[in-house]
Amino acid sequence: MRLGMIGLGRMGANLVRRMVAGGHQCVVYDHNPDAVRALADEPNTAGVHSLAELAAQLPAPRVVWVMVPAGAITTGVIDELTGLLTDGDVVIDGGNTYYRDDIAHAKTLAAKGIRLLDCGTSGGVWGRERGYCLMVGGDRTAFDHAEPIFATVAPGVDCAPRTPGRNGPITQAENGYLYCGPTGAGHFVKMVHNGIEYGMMASIAEGLNILHHANIGAQTQPGDAETAPLANPEFYRYDIDIEQVSEVWRRGSVIGSWLLDLTADALHTSPDLAEFAGRVSDSGEGRWTVIAAIDEGVPAPVLTTALYARFSSRHLFEFGAKVLSAMRKQFGGHDEESS
Amino acid sequence: MRLGMIGLGRMGANLVRRMVAGGHQCVVYDHNPDAVRALADEPNTAGVHSLAELAAQLPAPRVVWVMVPAGAITTGVIDELTGLLTDGDVVIDGGNTYYRDDIAHAKTLAAKGIRLLDCGTSGGVWGRERGYCLMVGGDRTAFDHAEPIFATVAPGVDCAPRTPGRNGPITQAENGYLYCGPTGAGHFVKMVHNGIEYGMMASIAEGLNILHHANIGAQTQPGDAETAPLANPEFYRYDIDIEQVSEVWRRGSVIGSWLLDLTADALHTSPDLAEFAGRVSDSGEGRWTVIAAIDEGVPAPVLTTALYARFSSRHLFEFGAKVLSAMRKQFGGHDEESS
Amino acid sequence: MRLGMIGLGRMGANLVRRMVAGGHQCVVYDHNPDAVRALADEPNTAGVHSLAELAAQLPAPRVVWVMVPAGAITTGVIDELTGLLTDGDVVIDGGNTYYRDDIAHAKTLAAKGIRLLDCGTSGGVWGRERGYCLMVGGDRTAFDHAEPIFATVAPGVDCAPRTPGRNGPITQAENGYLYCGPTGAGHFVKMVHNGIEYGMMASIAEGLNILHHANIGAQTQPGDAETAPLANPEFYRYDIDIEQVSEVWRRGSVIGSWLLDLTADALHTSPDLAEFAGRVSDSGEGRWTVIAAIDEGVPAPVLTTALYARFSSRHLFEFGAKVLSAMRKQFGGHDEESS
Amino acid sequence: MRLGMIGLGRMGANLVRRMVAGGHQCVVYDHNPDAVRALADEPNTAGVHSLAELAAQLPAPRVVWVMVPAGAITTGVIDELTGLLTDGDVVIDGGNTYYRDDIAHAKTLAAKGIRLLDCGTSGGVWGRERGYCLMVGGDRTAFDHAEPIFATVAPGVDCAPRTPGRNGPITQAENGYLYCGPTGAGHFVKMVHNGIEYGMMASIAEGLNILHHANIGAQTQPGDAETAPLANPEFYRYDIDIEQVSEVWRRGSVIGSWLLDLTADALHTSPDLAEFAGRVSDSGEGRWTVIAAIDEGVPAPVLTTALYARFSSRHLFEFGAKVLSAMRKQFGGHDEESS
Repeated sequence: MRLGMIGLGRMGANLVRRMVAGGHQCVVYDHNPDAVRALADEPNTAGVHSLAELAAQLPAPRVVWVMVPAGAITTGVIDELTGLLTDGDVVIDGGNTYYRDDIAHAKTLAAKGIRLLDCGTSGGVWGRERGYCLMVGGDRTAFDHAEPIFATVAPGVDCAPRTPGRNGPITQAENGYLYCGPTGAGHFVKMVHNGIEYGMMASIAEGLNILHHANIGAQTQPGDAETAPLANPEFYRYDIDIEQVSEVWRRGSVIGSWLLDLTADALHTSPDLAEFAGRVSDSGEGRWTVIAAIDEGVPAPVLTTALYARFSSRHLFEFGAKVLSAMRKQFGGHDEESS
Repeated sequence: MRLGMIGLGRMGANLVRRMVAGGHQCVVYDHNPDAVRALADEPNTAGVHSLAELAAQLPAPRVVWVMVPAGAITTGVIDELTGLLTDGDVVIDGGNTYYRDDIAHAKTLAAKGIRLLDCGTSGGVWGRERGYCLMVGGDRTAFDHAEPIFATVAPGVDCAPRTPGRNGPITQAENGYLYCGPTGAGHFVKMVHNGIEYGMMASIAEGLNILHHANIGAQTQPGDAETAPLANPEFYRYDIDIEQVSEVWRRGSVIGSWLLDLTADALHTSPDLAEFAGRVSDSGEGRWTVIAAIDEGVPAPVLTTALYARFSSRHLFEFGAKVLSAMRKQFGGHDEESS
Repeated sequence: MRLGMIGLGRMGANLVRRMVAGGHQCVVYDHNPDAVRALADEPNTAGVHSLAELAAQLPAPRVVWVMVPAGAITTGVIDELTGLLTDGDVVIDGGNTYYRDDIAHAKTLAAKGIRLLDCGTSGGVWGRERGYCLMVGGDRTAFDHAEPIFATVAPGVDCAPRTPGRNGPITQAENGYLYCGPTGAGHFVKMVHNGIEYGMMASIAEGLNILHHANIGAQTQPGDAETAPLANPEFYRYDIDIEQVSEVWRRGSVIGSWLLDLTADALHTSPDLAEFAGRVSDSGEGRWTVIAAIDEGVPAPVLTTALYARFSSRHLFEFGAKVLSAMRKQFGGHDEESS
Repeated sequence: MRLGMIGLGRMGANLVRRMVAGGHQCVVYDHNPDAVRALADEPNTAGVHSLAELAAQLPAPRVVWVMVPAGAITTGVIDELTGLLTDGDVVIDGGNTYYRDDIAHAKTLAAKGIRLLDCGTSGGVWGRERGYCLMVGGDRTAFDHAEPIFATVAPGVDCAPRTPGRNGPITQAENGYLYCGPTGAGHFVKMVHNGIEYGMMASIAEGLNILHHANIGAQTQPGDAETAPLANPEFYRYDIDIEQVSEVWRRGSVIGSWLLDLTADALHTSPDLAEFAGRVSDSGEGRWTVIAAIDEGVPAPVLTTALYARFSSRHLFEFGAKVLSAMRKQFGGHDEESS
């Protein structure tokens, strides 16, 4: 299939390469001409310098994959495409768009008969090689039309053993892509995927932090009236090699996972992670997952506290902590311990 | 009643003054002679320079109130008293002893026929004037013997309106002290009291922190790919006067409480709390409360996350946060945002 | 002042009575004629049968207090009032409106020159007697005009001792009402107040639940391979009288609070609370507080887990719990224990 | 090597088969003679009917693997072995013993010169085929002696790709077993492993629960004053096929993991999990992990709330929830909604 790609950052460029390697042809655009130039020399890849040019070079019905930052930039591209594409064309938004924005975007495009597919794309910088896990929502006929692209981009069934009991024909999901439902369903499922990711990451991080402090009983405990002393130091005299632990857990344990693989990789490169300050960012999906839980009225304490741990790592509870110290001073005359 | 007081720190000294003001006589001891001297000039207060001397000056059955730091120091005093007191005497441990230690201490003392009362004492630096809330465990006959002391130390019924429907004689609890059960019951109830205190304090602190950041929509939002931008800045343009808010909530609101009174006091003195760094200590009871919840198998997520917020305020998740940043770098190529 | 009251439910009717007792005159309306009739016989209270009639009976500039359920009903009343009131009139929304809706409502009213005051009203069923804590946002001149009403409705300074250091003239906040800022500020502060309320309530509930289970060590522990046995039953043999504990904590303790007073009252009436099933509702402000924390990017784990405990109490994690049991069955062959 | 196995439950029996398949000979014992008989017919497996007989059939220095329920039963076996084994023998405790008990057991055995290895064994019912991930603590020379057993039981390096950058000789950890440190270190690491497992499981369960409720906006919302209505039902009209979602996430996504594989398996077998009631057990390690975090003073909110979600699933907050409903009734006159 000949399709367009808008946005040639890390994700977009790798998607193009994977598509071309799978037999498709790509017309590529980025607002940065250097990014276009860098890719345009590759086989079956044509660079263009405007969205109008991109639209002109695609056969009908056009398929255009948008891979730009979520929010205002994506909305801007959608708006411009509404003026350039025509009835029956298909826009795939592969970014991290909030599913509620998809609903607005679909309405804009539908006024011209253009169909939107919202496509949650997981796999990060490793996806070009491993393939990307795709969660797609929107018009079902548009999905059927674009399915060959999804099948190429996805990892394929061979990257994991089939689930016991699945013996029939290989399904979409087993190939690593899934039509999830009407507009927004793809990004909704991707949003929850990222929420789970936050929880899993925090689980590993909390566990390793407990191991990191397992020798606290061997350290001198300064006499400090303000902090509870360790009652049983004899139980905390382990000097655990966390790099080795993360490696051993990769084979045969219940917590084996890709995130653990990456953790072992990071710790092998840098056992004490000294190049990191521990200020952990969040990019939206975790927040939206929590808001979805609250709107639905279902508890999500693990995913939420995982999100809050990131906020705290950026010192955003500082004023609240001062309030706590001030109260302790008020009722007990307690001074803060020095750092 | 003539009783002994061991430990003349802030709490011990104020207890002595309140006891004497209530008609009792005190024989007082502290390992620091200056503390003894400071108090010994007051009426009906006799200073002594050893526990032996203290024991010698008390009528049988002796009543000795121990008000020293919990842990090894309390255990040391109990051990020494075991050698000095005799059958029928009563030791009151008014400190923040772990209730499990009470069980050990009671056994030690019981070998000589000495009875232990474990007495959780709440009220902080304000107790001399307000009275102390007392939660007592141990031998019931010892409690009955010492009850006049507890009645003096407690606030008395007049400090709060009677609960609707309570029309009969004033009960112990209404006077501000309570026999809670066998050895350890007093400190167990006090432990849970402090656990609740952690949760209430954190509730107020989190709420005020949300108000403190209520103008985040009015601040310049730097373009930052690593952190979710605020989708709806128009909803966060409030510049709330937190000092005034803490004051208005003191009258008529559902969250009226002594902790709120103290917060209003602290904020009136120092509206931005600049003299605090936000490193919040914890002194044991919060930890023990969580361990009790876990042993009992009952959920206590609010009390526990309140405790963890204190740990985090002392930067004890730093290694874990580095693990999170390292994972993000691995799968997404994300760099940490600069501080 | 002569003002209108729309909505004569528990809150609205009590507000009218408190206003009239404070020297004001009220023109009252409810969509239920019986509610109008019930109140219209009281002194200085005139019942009307439509909003038009209400508008006709008020002097300019009119002041109308709206006390109806938040959401669609409040919006409907605002819309109708927009057609009936005129330039310079003042609408006070005293309900639990989401502060974001205030911004929309203010815009609607402003088109006719009508000014909105959003007024968070705390105090519940006790407010008629105790007074209501009022947090007000909106047009400052409108606030100044309506201030005599707020002063009457609020508890006044005498219901709590002045904060130490406050010696000058009595401030608004000390009288129990506060102008918090532009439109929405009042309901924003009230929203956070309720968020804190959720956290405080959960703190007390978790603590009492721990005390309720403090005798778990005395109960027969069935041999059960699926659940961790209690390692140290000797530490959990207390039969705590929770009703008495809630009473003793009311005097002199650090956690003294109105919520504790209410808890003591409830437990005095019904020590085992058998008439409750433990399905805890939530009415919006807790959810909005969490969403505000997330939008601001500040951690609120205590307030959030308090909210989630309510969701869980209504069995809304059931499917998730089944997923957990299914996983345990998969990797460990564990069957669920029977109930 | 010829070694003994005590305990022929699911785990013990599978370990024997894997050991024998790897070239070792096993002398096997269980207190249930049927379990001995069931295994004794297999090649290179000799059944015995007492621990004394088992000791008699092993060459010096003896190696005995104990695979019985943690707690009193393990302690009983250790005690009995102390009387039967001799200087230089090695006991491997492969169960889920609390690492603090290891320290006591090691002391008991050391009095006779017997060496203990505490061996955390992960892999569940799948381990016979996949191999078990082993985390070992205790005497280093004993570990070296028994290492051929561990190498056989572990999965071996081939079950996962080598971590990038690991190019030298295969390490212990890469083979799936690790010497972690002195007595207790193995079970300490295993304990934290299970803590992480709780967090990961809860992450998946919470996420799937959010997807399960994603069509809440399409359901009739009864008018209910006690529960917040859904403000934006148009965003919650997805009917997500959770079975398919769990399958698609297995390939290429960031949350790919063995636990997800098992979830997909469970959902393929039973899409609505109707055979589960959602009462989730916990078997100790999760609790101990939280206690370790608290003793160390490090925050573990994700692991802890995951544990509490299990407690709540067994209705252990019921009394606390009644307290919440009672408070709401007191201050707001709110009745509980009916179920």
